[in-house]
Amino acid sequence: MARVAGVVEAALDALLPPTEGAEGRLIDAMRYAALGGGKRLRAFLAMETAALFAVAETYSARVAASIEMLHAYSLVHDDLPAMDDDDLRRGKPSTHKEFDEATAILAGDALQARAFEVLAEPDTHSDPQARCELVMALGSAVGGHGMAGGQMIDMLAEGKTLDGPQVTRLQALKTGRLIQFSAESGAILGRASAQQRHLLAAYGRDLGAAFQIADDVLDVEGSTEELGKTGGKDAAAGKATMVSVLGLDMARAHADMLARQAAGHLDGFGPRAANLQVLAEFVVRRRS
Amino acid sequence: MARVAGVVEAALDALLPPTEGAEGRLIDAMRYAALGGGKRLRAFLAMETAALFAVAETYSARVAASIEMLHAYSLVHDDLPAMDDDDLRRGKPSTHKEFDEATAILAGDALQARAFEVLAEPDTHSDPQARCELVMALGSAVGGHGMAGGQMIDMLAEGKTLDGPQVTRLQALKTGRLIQFSAESGAILGRASAQQRHLLAAYGRDLGAAFQIADDVLDVEGSTEELGKTGGKDAAAGKATMVSVLGLDMARAHADMLARQAAGHLDGFGPRAANLQVLAEFVVRRRS
Repeated sequence: MARVAGVVEAALDALLPPTEGAEGRLIDAMRYAALGGGKRLRAFLAMETAALFAVAETYSARVAASIEMLHAYSLVHDDLPAMDDDDLRRGKPSTHKEFDEATAILAGDALQARAFEVLAEPDTHSDPQARCELVMALGSAVGGHGMAGGQMIDMLAEGKTLDGPQVTRLQALKTGRLIQFSAESGAILGRASAQQRHLLAAYGRDLGAAFQIADDVLDVEGSTEELGKTGGKDAAAGKATMVSVLGLDMARAHADMLARQAAGHLDGFGPRAANLQVLAEFVVRRRS
Repeated sequence: MARVAGVVEAALDALLPPTEGAEGRLIDAMRYAALGGGKRLRAFLAMETAALFAVAETYSARVAASIEMLHAYSLVHDDLPAMDDDDLRRGKPSTHKEFDEATAILAGDALQARAFEVLAEPDTHSDPQARCELVMALGSAVGGHGMAGGQMIDMLAEGKTLDGPQVTRLQALKTGRLIQFSAESGAILGRASAQQRHLLAAYGRDLGAAFQIADDVLDVEGSTEELGKTGGKDAAAGKATMVSVLGLDMARAHADMLARQAAGHLDGFGPRAANLQVLAEFVVRRRS
């Protein structure tokens, strides 16, 4: 993962070059939000699933960078005062604290646009059909019935009691769909069979669900220092999580089960998929 | 224009269907922002330039709707308290007043995602290469060196004195690039020659500049009632416009010159381009 993080960092740096123009402050804020941070879980998924089909990293690194731009935009907007109002992200001031609210809104907007643009560019794949599939799948994953819809449900759920299926759907939209797309993107880049794409999507879906529940557990157990973001904030905001629905022990067991299920989808890929199977274990064992 | 507005309204309604899901409030806000309003100038440009190449309206209406979604998102975000802080848009409460700030931010985000998704879908063009070109050109038009960059420059310019070239670049980015893309999109859909695409881009660029200067003039001359948005707000916010740089009479004359120049780029297209040439006159004569 550290190697992939380095590759995607270089790709982001190249795809978001600083500028001398009057809009330089915006580009600086985009770089501040996108560069130098995070586990790069989504990038790792994109590059590892592409590697299953022997896709060159020059292509998969662009898709990984595009996904990380999209993810970074979502964090910038989620942290805004009108949303989750969080001053800390990846151990640094969140973008609207480092710059200001207007700049943060615009930086998120421009990161989203750049993510789609990069996917459509010829350097991402020789076949425009594959590039269109990437754009469509990303658009669907992050739109009103995807990530943005999930964040809406999350905002509406504050102070309310959701049941298990409601929390599951909330999380599937808010974080699951983009993680699923990350895993699927390798199959699109690799022009995989429908069956292979389906298995990778199922892997991404279960991995994403396990990841989110582990995140909920960490929010209860972890300190702000370890997390690099504010700990204990779900409970403070009265947010519905799988911990509030199932309790801590059952939530942990459910995440473990989902992680095993995720790994199981990859059995047919053989030893090439070992890294991805280990990742499923990692997302429920991590401490931050 | 009224006929095109009806066609694009129907396309928007079909592309943004209401939903029973928990994310329904977000979809409602997207529909509130995108449906039922505006002159649909950008949609008209997309559909009329596509008509030059005999592109069927089933295709160009999707591109027009996509552009209007993008434009609607930009208005929703520009109106936010952290940005231009405007309570009125198209004669109605702006989206964050009708809903709330978080919903408005998310609705804008989701409209942008949907705009790119629609362009990449097979129903937009049979050739994926054309769809990729649409996504790339839109991404470039609205990103950090396009619309979002222009809004950043606009925010930074408040209370400062910009010179003519600085105001021209601000406006080219903030509103010009998307209007230029609208005019260019017909050439992309119609698989036009590079020369034809270049001429339509030049038409869009000059038309967009004329449109923006006419907007600045209207902001000084028009009443809030006529405009359907708050009048006199540029001067109140200390915003740099071509009126502040050139004065009212010179600004009007400059807009007229640009409109004639825009129309001139279309001379080679013959009588088919008459509507587009009349439009250039309309954008500098309109009262709202």
